[in-house]
Amino acid sequence: MIKLARKISRKPRAKLSPRDNSTLNPYTEPIEIIKPGETVTISTWDAFGGVVSPKQTFQEAVEKGLTGALNQVTGPIYIEGAKPGDTLVVEIIDIDLPEYGGTSIIPGFGALEGWLNLMKPKTKISYIENDKVIYRTDHGQVIEIDTNPFIGTIGVSPSYEAIQTLAPGPHGGNMDCPDIRIGSKLYLPVNVDGALFGLGDVHAVQGDGEICGTAVEVSADVTLRFSLQDNAIDWPRVESDKMIMTICSARPLEDAARLAYRELINWMVEEYGWVRDDAYMFLSLAAKARISQIVDPLYTVVAKLDKKYLE
Amino acid sequence: MIKLARKISRKPRAKLSPRDNSTLNPYTEPIEIIKPGETVTISTWDAFGGVVSPKQTFQEAVEKGLTGALNQVTGPIYIEGAKPGDTLVVEIIDIDLPEYGGTSIIPGFGALEGWLNLMKPKTKISYIENDKVIYRTDHGQVIEIDTNPFIGTIGVSPSYEAIQTLAPGPHGGNMDCPDIRIGSKLYLPVNVDGALFGLGDVHAVQGDGEICGTAVEVSADVTLRFSLQDNAIDWPRVESDKMIMTICSARPLEDAARLAYRELINWMVEEYGWVRDDAYMFLSLAAKARISQIVDPLYTVVAKLDKKYLE
Amino acid sequence: MIKLARKISRKPRAKLSPRDNSTLNPYTEPIEIIKPGETVTISTWDAFGGVVSPKQTFQEAVEKGLTGALNQVTGPIYIEGAKPGDTLVVEIIDIDLPEYGGTSIIPGFGALEGWLNLMKPKTKISYIENDKVIYRTDHGQVIEIDTNPFIGTIGVSPSYEAIQTLAPGPHGGNMDCPDIRIGSKLYLPVNVDGALFGLGDVHAVQGDGEICGTAVEVSADVTLRFSLQDNAIDWPRVESDKMIMTICSARPLEDAARLAYRELINWMVEEYGWVRDDAYMFLSLAAKARISQIVDPLYTVVAKLDKKYLE
Amino acid sequence: MIKLARKISRKPRAKLSPRDNSTLNPYTEPIEIIKPGETVTISTWDAFGGVVSPKQTFQEAVEKGLTGALNQVTGPIYIEGAKPGDTLVVEIIDIDLPEYGGTSIIPGFGALEGWLNLMKPKTKISYIENDKVIYRTDHGQVIEIDTNPFIGTIGVSPSYEAIQTLAPGPHGGNMDCPDIRIGSKLYLPVNVDGALFGLGDVHAVQGDGEICGTAVEVSADVTLRFSLQDNAIDWPRVESDKMIMTICSARPLEDAARLAYRELINWMVEEYGWVRDDAYMFLSLAAKARISQIVDPLYTVVAKLDKKYLE
Repeated sequence: MIKLARKISRKPRAKLSPRDNSTLNPYTEPIEIIKPGETVTISTWDAFGGVVSPKQTFQEAVEKGLTGALNQVTGPIYIEGAKPGDTLVVEIIDIDLPEYGGTSIIPGFGALEGWLNLMKPKTKISYIENDKVIYRTDHGQVIEIDTNPFIGTIGVSPSYEAIQTLAPGPHGGNMDCPDIRIGSKLYLPVNVDGALFGLGDVHAVQGDGEICGTAVEVSADVTLRFSLQDNAIDWPRVESDKMIMTICSARPLEDAARLAYRELINWMVEEYGWVRDDAYMFLSLAAKARISQIVDPLYTVVAKLDKKYLE
Repeated sequence: MIKLARKISRKPRAKLSPRDNSTLNPYTEPIEIIKPGETVTISTWDAFGGVVSPKQTFQEAVEKGLTGALNQVTGPIYIEGAKPGDTLVVEIIDIDLPEYGGTSIIPGFGALEGWLNLMKPKTKISYIENDKVIYRTDHGQVIEIDTNPFIGTIGVSPSYEAIQTLAPGPHGGNMDCPDIRIGSKLYLPVNVDGALFGLGDVHAVQGDGEICGTAVEVSADVTLRFSLQDNAIDWPRVESDKMIMTICSARPLEDAARLAYRELINWMVEEYGWVRDDAYMFLSLAAKARISQIVDPLYTVVAKLDKKYLE
Repeated sequence: MIKLARKISRKPRAKLSPRDNSTLNPYTEPIEIIKPGETVTISTWDAFGGVVSPKQTFQEAVEKGLTGALNQVTGPIYIEGAKPGDTLVVEIIDIDLPEYGGTSIIPGFGALEGWLNLMKPKTKISYIENDKVIYRTDHGQVIEIDTNPFIGTIGVSPSYEAIQTLAPGPHGGNMDCPDIRIGSKLYLPVNVDGALFGLGDVHAVQGDGEICGTAVEVSADVTLRFSLQDNAIDWPRVESDKMIMTICSARPLEDAARLAYRELINWMVEEYGWVRDDAYMFLSLAAKARISQIVDPLYTVVAKLDKKYLE
Repeated sequence: MIKLARKISRKPRAKLSPRDNSTLNPYTEPIEIIKPGETVTISTWDAFGGVVSPKQTFQEAVEKGLTGALNQVTGPIYIEGAKPGDTLVVEIIDIDLPEYGGTSIIPGFGALEGWLNLMKPKTKISYIENDKVIYRTDHGQVIEIDTNPFIGTIGVSPSYEAIQTLAPGPHGGNMDCPDIRIGSKLYLPVNVDGALFGLGDVHAVQGDGEICGTAVEVSADVTLRFSLQDNAIDWPRVESDKMIMTICSARPLEDAARLAYRELINWMVEEYGWVRDDAYMFLSLAAKARISQIVDPLYTVVAKLDKKYLE
């Protein structure tokens, strides 16, 4: 990859602030201004705040007392011209992975917390080589998993709240959605002037549900191109070559699915001319859905439709 | 397809009984006895009780007052030698679809009931040709959807309950799981002597979640081969050439996902030698999940792992 | 109290059948026929099947392998003249408590299963004297709790299902509702000829939610008077001198609350002349609700309105 | 009531800011500093931002376009000496009600949204006289409801988030809990220096669940006395003459109940010497619970125990 992009660095760890980097909010001063159309490469923190390395797992960092607030983002980034009611379009051009990533079981966290009888903390470092995560099992097997690098936490400022970066919502945030990957376009609703964009929490690969609460957590360099549309949307949307997708978050999980399907019906009606109840019926035959995650403050579902059905 | 199999017919509609055909139960006399190893072809009712045809939609049948209990099964079928604590293995050899199927929006039913502002009843007949469902949209488009024939309702008798066939559970039932398809093996826990197997509600194709409450509902001829294993399982499992899968049902939907993932971890530990918390962590990186349906009395999730990771 | 009532005994333990006594169902032969207007005294089993006594706790019975199916009911009792579409009215005349009752923590059961770090089984016998339960705490305190005897499991047969007695539903069942007490009237929808009534699981006292999964579980003699009304209801209702109440069960718990409030609005509209949205608004100011239980297969909420507001 | 207290006014409506008055947050400058031990009277906004009056209902205000952000609080108030890890104790000395209050059904809001077939907006003004709310039904009845004035929204700043005042949480907020009433003591965990306290949304009376989404919404003068304790708590607690209570918020509703009961068990163990599983068992016999509200972003349950059992 040739990086023609302007580079935006992450802060040195000592300068990370829970107030400024662990929320998406309208209060913090932007760290950069970007023009629509510009391509930039942004360095991101892993979800543990950058403490994980082959020499020190998250578990060891916790034991040393080194860990601050979790899931810190690089931002806020001010997008010139963005104003409330616009849609921010983020093309994901590239995600450059490091040589390793970390996965942790954290007591009090994870989808099976209280459902299994083990729940001791555990951290494992996996190397990443030739687009494979090398996973060494506890029973002596070495497994290669194809990487699918994607951005776990990506969003804009809410209109007046400061929402913790562990939470997903209509503003984006910690959606942990594997479809926000290289080649896809993410649509986000703009709530404040400049959008105040932030991102972090890249995953080298993740299973549906992210059930132990973490994936292969990495720091990464992410190359993006921004543009603006003057229509309003209610929840994040993604588009790939093949699919249109809506991403909604709620509890219980069925409400996330209902919201995502309702958004997808809205999209079909507004942009593709479908009749409302006919779209509902057709999705009952042809839609796909993904459980993104069931570990964060709200749970996330992606509803999908193949574009081949839309002409 | 050459049918060497013994044939089991469905009853004439006049003989369908809500008590006997709309529950899986230990009370009804078996209609047939099958030996392990035997291949049989079983005719099934569509979910509307066989009233739907190109000349009469479900909606028209309801208006005429013709509709009895929904989702009636062919059964009970007694599997020789099956006893509580065994596992019944059902190989799905073939599913022979008819020329059309029906899809309905039914007021008071469906995942978006109360979430959209339309909710009038609606029925649509779609023809099935050359492994395609021909869907005619209300805005004048003709769409071909590849069929994926599968058995929506399939299960065994509970130990002492009579569970309505609209509900899924540990005994199987209305799981609406598109992975119970040709070429896959379904594992069901045996609760009573003879297992007392029943099935119906075949779908020509279905989207994840079956959101309007119905798919392409068909009557069909299903060819199966049965065998027995002497180990016990807690919830239905499916195996394809490529994946191992667990199917669990609960409300809210996240509990179905938690149950399915816990079952999958149990399977990895018991049969493939994984360490418990390592399996949990690995699934967080590599598992797939499917939302089968969010419209029945309990909601259903399938948790999946690619067999390539299991040696 | 003078018992003029006919007496219906519970079966000897050896004759209890999971199939017949652990479901409410239309399959089992009635044990008695009762005429409307007749007062009867019915002996009931405690939820553990009668194994608990000061000499043997539930825990000890489990360790000896003595325990069969849980929560067995006395029934079915055929109510002469009851037919589908009627409402069965059950006046609770008296509940005669024994000298002790049992409370258990059962692993895998209880509202805080997986939420506390203890979850060893535990059984405690409490004596009942002068309308007080005498509770001896593990830290050496003796506490008297006023008894509130009520019927935990009470219901009629579903139309064609056999529903386990551990579950509540539109047919009644294991509602664990402390308002089904002496002096109140319970209304149940009749689904089959004769109603096929059953009851058991009396509690000497219970907290809201029944959070550890058991209350003070007792065998008891319950005196009832039955009558019939020819209107249909959708869910159980209760009436005391002071309140009208609806009892609904679902998961998640908010759906039980929504159902119960919707039923209460229906009651206000149909019998007391309220305008629908005005009833909704008024309940937002003046209703009471009780969390009956959050431990059974469906959760139960009681919605209540003081009769003084109804003229 | 004699008001010896310092008075803190609410802002003129023109100065209310969504950013500052519709979140509890650590960003906004305090409007006042109060010393522990001091008694103050604070004027609060009704939940509609003060637009409701006998001459103009919320509905009319919406139609005129007058309505800004909802549920604005008076604050932040800096409590001298409060620091993270402390507990702020708020004694509710008095709540002085106005002469009327407003109740609204708001489309898209309310527990039965999508469950009833009406859902047009509706606003009703009720006069308050002699400690009674005078409710005029649509079918011509005049009903007096005893007032129970309480503070619907009351809390402190989170450590780094700005949480919308419509939401409840560990920091307090929109708990809509009728037990936060005259004579009770509310305990709140302090997260930032000065606590940064705020309150509003007083209700003259409210039913359990606040099901249409609003109660009798009033502006009011609230007299409070503050003090500090140097122990930490995880969730708000309330104490009356008679009861100890914990208030927790989550979705689904059963999780709010589980959290509240777990907090109550913790309280019994830490302050009253109970053994953990014994407290769990005892609450299953003797606890009370209240569904505070099922209409806000998280749902709220209060778990209660009578103090007579804690001697």
